[in-house]
Amino acid sequence: MPIKRSGLVTLLTDFGTRDHFVGVMKGVIAGIAPRARVVDISHEAPPYGLRAARFLLGQSWPWFPKGTVHLVVVDPGVGTERRGLVVEAGGHLFVGPDNGVLSEPLRQKGARARVISEAKFSMKNISHTFHGRDVFAPVSARLAAGEAAAKFGPLVKDALAVTGDKPIRTGKRYWQGEVAYVDRFGNLITNLPAEEFPEIRTRGFALRAGFAALTELMPNYAAGFPGEPVLVVGSSGCLEVAVNQGDAAKLLGLGLGSPVELEIR
Amino acid sequence: MPIKRSGLVTLLTDFGTRDHFVGVMKGVIAGIAPRARVVDISHEAPPYGLRAARFLLGQSWPWFPKGTVHLVVVDPGVGTERRGLVVEAGGHLFVGPDNGVLSEPLRQKGARARVISEAKFSMKNISHTFHGRDVFAPVSARLAAGEAAAKFGPLVKDALAVTGDKPIRTGKRYWQGEVAYVDRFGNLITNLPAEEFPEIRTRGFALRAGFAALTELMPNYAAGFPGEPVLVVGSSGCLEVAVNQGDAAKLLGLGLGSPVELEIR
Amino acid sequence: MPIKRSGLVTLLTDFGTRDHFVGVMKGVIAGIAPRARVVDISHEAPPYGLRAARFLLGQSWPWFPKGTVHLVVVDPGVGTERRGLVVEAGGHLFVGPDNGVLSEPLRQKGARARVISEAKFSMKNISHTFHGRDVFAPVSARLAAGEAAAKFGPLVKDALAVTGDKPIRTGKRYWQGEVAYVDRFGNLITNLPAEEFPEIRTRGFALRAGFAALTELMPNYAAGFPGEPVLVVGSSGCLEVAVNQGDAAKLLGLGLGSPVELEIR
Repeated sequence: MPIKRSGLVTLLTDFGTRDHFVGVMKGVIAGIAPRARVVDISHEAPPYGLRAARFLLGQSWPWFPKGTVHLVVVDPGVGTERRGLVVEAGGHLFVGPDNGVLSEPLRQKGARARVISEAKFSMKNISHTFHGRDVFAPVSARLAAGEAAAKFGPLVKDALAVTGDKPIRTGKRYWQGEVAYVDRFGNLITNLPAEEFPEIRTRGFALRAGFAALTELMPNYAAGFPGEPVLVVGSSGCLEVAVNQGDAAKLLGLGLGSPVELEIR
Repeated sequence: MPIKRSGLVTLLTDFGTRDHFVGVMKGVIAGIAPRARVVDISHEAPPYGLRAARFLLGQSWPWFPKGTVHLVVVDPGVGTERRGLVVEAGGHLFVGPDNGVLSEPLRQKGARARVISEAKFSMKNISHTFHGRDVFAPVSARLAAGEAAAKFGPLVKDALAVTGDKPIRTGKRYWQGEVAYVDRFGNLITNLPAEEFPEIRTRGFALRAGFAALTELMPNYAAGFPGEPVLVVGSSGCLEVAVNQGDAAKLLGLGLGSPVELEIR
Repeated sequence: MPIKRSGLVTLLTDFGTRDHFVGVMKGVIAGIAPRARVVDISHEAPPYGLRAARFLLGQSWPWFPKGTVHLVVVDPGVGTERRGLVVEAGGHLFVGPDNGVLSEPLRQKGARARVISEAKFSMKNISHTFHGRDVFAPVSARLAAGEAAAKFGPLVKDALAVTGDKPIRTGKRYWQGEVAYVDRFGNLITNLPAEEFPEIRTRGFALRAGFAALTELMPNYAAGFPGEPVLVVGSSGCLEVAVNQGDAAKLLGLGLGSPVELEIR
């Protein structure tokens, strides 16, 4: 059954907001789908930062109305043979390169991926450096305007869904996780979902991150002494190391991909 | 009499634009009020920077149509007992934490503040770290869609309105003011409204800011020699120390909250 | 024949997004033209950076639907005698100061420029420091709402169109160009349009930029070895020096306005 469209298109790129790239994509979308409304998720994904982009997409899309088109352009392979995808998952639509950046929707139950047949459906002259403008924006605009995903290319089974983002059990009572994202406040958001570790609310535990060993779950950031790291369940639902009115990444010297270890006692 | 809604929601936060937070709030708003239009004021208030946020709110809201909802999330106490507010003032609506950040509308004549009864009106699962998404965005969206402010909670008399932002008279001819804001160009915007000091247009005066003593009002930034500080009436209506094509904050070594002194001769 | 309006207004400024300036302009526009939709091109033009703003405008406006109003505020002379312009060109409308920043549309065939008669058409109290809010935003909003350009002031022939942005032929086989823009990735975008030099696809050539002499056109960024400069035809259609997953500006020590030389062999 086709997904009814919300008329919204979200944008997630590593283009920054200094240059004209994002504005140009919005101009292309407005020309094709004048009633579509565009919402910026972020344009500050680290250049070529697929890991951060996967996180940002996973955190944002479920908060939008069903039928929203989510356009992701973090695309170090632009102009090469890498494919473009349209993914239908969870009642939403996703457009972007087939480089793993759409892993999160691809892991959803019932997800369907199509490879964009560029020649037919995008702008006439496709540059080798700006598929956001020449391929992905036109496809997203047409999807937002109601065109069927099937029009853009055939279903494929081998779209790239990265699997390495999940924590690994390393012992009976040990899990190896990582810092999945560092937000603007320096909070270290781990890939350890609190609901998968209910024991932390009832038993002893230790979360080790850099030189810190956190053995208590705090209700909020403000519960910590200024300057001391605290462990909270962040808005992502994952364990998060923060410092009350401070910067946990700087204090602990950790960043994106840094290892953390959870021990349940 | 209820305020007719413009359908606009403005956003002012310290979230930055790097992360997903702002986009997620827009997704929540779009889901509740599909026809609301969101305008960003700034997401670069200094982290936990209540003083700067008060200034930015005061400078921006009067320029919007009546019936606009202004959502402010600068909220170091998120997840604690601090209250959330809906304020009606000057024909506009304001939503944010009760930590002083809404002081400017609260000082308006006839302002009315209500405490948000969270349990009834926000998302089902309220996180302890992201009330922008879980409380303030849903309330703002409902207000923008036309719901009455009264539905969100009872009137209160003790909402926090900071009073320390005004200049202090320290002598017959002396006023102690401060730098209320430093803009991107390094202009030092004081809290001295030019219209409260009409003498500066007719008599001798001196505005002291760091090592500079400015005794002349210039018509615009370009009137100064490059590299020299000048005094102008800025777009805020307040006295402003600027450097033609330069950075007054760097030149004078001053910043937010730095003291300035006005002497009328 | 009047230009039919798209209802879109694009914004290009050097205001940054930290302060309230952009939000305030959007509030003014919403008050005058409630159905206009505003798209940000960039607010990170270098302060007073007319060269970069000309480039950004030239790159973006052709991608919008006809009848779009493009508002450019990079305005070191605000409050002086410099004039404000409304330009009709290529089926689009442009608003901004007469300081060369609108050169690109002014060079279009059939372009028509009008000087804004401020007293009649803008907000009542015009500040000396923020014409974006007090003059250009109101004029842009009225244009977007359908008012005729002729209402805003008389036609003029002497609007400032900078001519120095084009490459200069310095010998039978030599052209002197420059870096017209450095994007967020550090790519050096030259002012050498590939289609004006078809020989580079068929004969020997050398593009010299700093210590690099590039003698081969690559299909895309990813074709280069990591760390080595490559020459591509960028999305602007101009020759562009890039480094695969690296920063060409840093590697070569070049920036906006740096000279490049093209030799056709």
